[in-house]
Amino acid sequence: MTLILGIDPGSRITGYGVVRDLGRGCEYVASGCIRTGSGALHERLQIVFRGVREVIQTYGPVTMGIEQVFMAKNADSALKLGQARGAAIVAAVEEGLEIAEYTATQVKQAIAGTGGADKQQVQMMVMHLLKLTQKPQIDASDALAIALCHAHTRSSLIPHGLAGARSRGGRLRL
Amino acid sequence: MTLILGIDPGSRITGYGVVRDLGRGCEYVASGCIRTGSGALHERLQIVFRGVREVIQTYGPVTMGIEQVFMAKNADSALKLGQARGAAIVAAVEEGLEIAEYTATQVKQAIAGTGGADKQQVQMMVMHLLKLTQKPQIDASDALAIALCHAHTRSSLIPHGLAGARSRGGRLRL
Repeated sequence: MTLILGIDPGSRITGYGVVRDLGRGCEYVASGCIRTGSGALHERLQIVFRGVREVIQTYGPVTMGIEQVFMAKNADSALKLGQARGAAIVAAVEEGLEIAEYTATQVKQAIAGTGGADKQQVQMMVMHLLKLTQKPQIDASDALAIALCHAHTRSSLIPHGLAGARSRGGRLRL
Repeated sequence: MTLILGIDPGSRITGYGVVRDLGRGCEYVASGCIRTGSGALHERLQIVFRGVREVIQTYGPVTMGIEQVFMAKNADSALKLGQARGAAIVAAVEEGLEIAEYTATQVKQAIAGTGGADKQQVQMMVMHLLKLTQKPQIDASDALAIALCHAHTRSSLIPHGLAGARSRGGRLRL
């Protein structure tokens, strides 16, 4: 019954999704977007940091999945994305969550069965897997997809009975 | 007598420098490097976050200067730099420091009198201005240069008697 957080950081919007891993599937707990507004850089980063911390303190996930970035569009957008990512990861690690990174292909493969799935297909599968009747905002949906991928990967890696084990400040040790 | 922090974040080494603004010049307080080691990404970002927070809690600066990044080498290094930068900025803003960004040209101009100065010239001027007898490590020296630039810019902007004024969570308002 582990609670799992997925985060999709961005310089303007950081999506989050929380699911409960029931062992043979996941159920929806919460999702949404942290909007950073148009303030100074440090104000925007503080909004990401505090927003992620608030989600963790509200729902109590013990582990977080985040998308690994391989190819950012350009150096400027990579810097901005990196800053938001740094603020989000620090918030989670300071709250004691274990953190795992997944490539976009791994997320698509886990959710839609193929690494070549498009955003709409992933969103439809997220709705199907979590029995959602309304379409979540795209950043929230991406975050839920990462949370589902993390749940799937954990349960296939973790021997039966250890799925609730938690390792503070490091990768899960088996 | 304001204490000023300069930070030069990097994915492997984050330099820091603390100077005391005496009104007609600055004196050296401390400088050094936070080395992130070779652990997982979230461990390295936590080292930056906690390192910057420890420097702030140890020396008590009320304001921080950080270099603005215009052109990173490539998207991959920009992402890594951005993550370290995000962790460092969040640590400072969570400790209540005001934060100002300066371009490399502004830093060189303030320290060496010309925006075209090279790293060695800046380092020599940092040693001269702070009466250092030993050459600081280059990341620490860059951080001290940013702190000196921030002190210089503040004192030329702030009317006499307001130099100690502090604005929490935003830019200094005059």
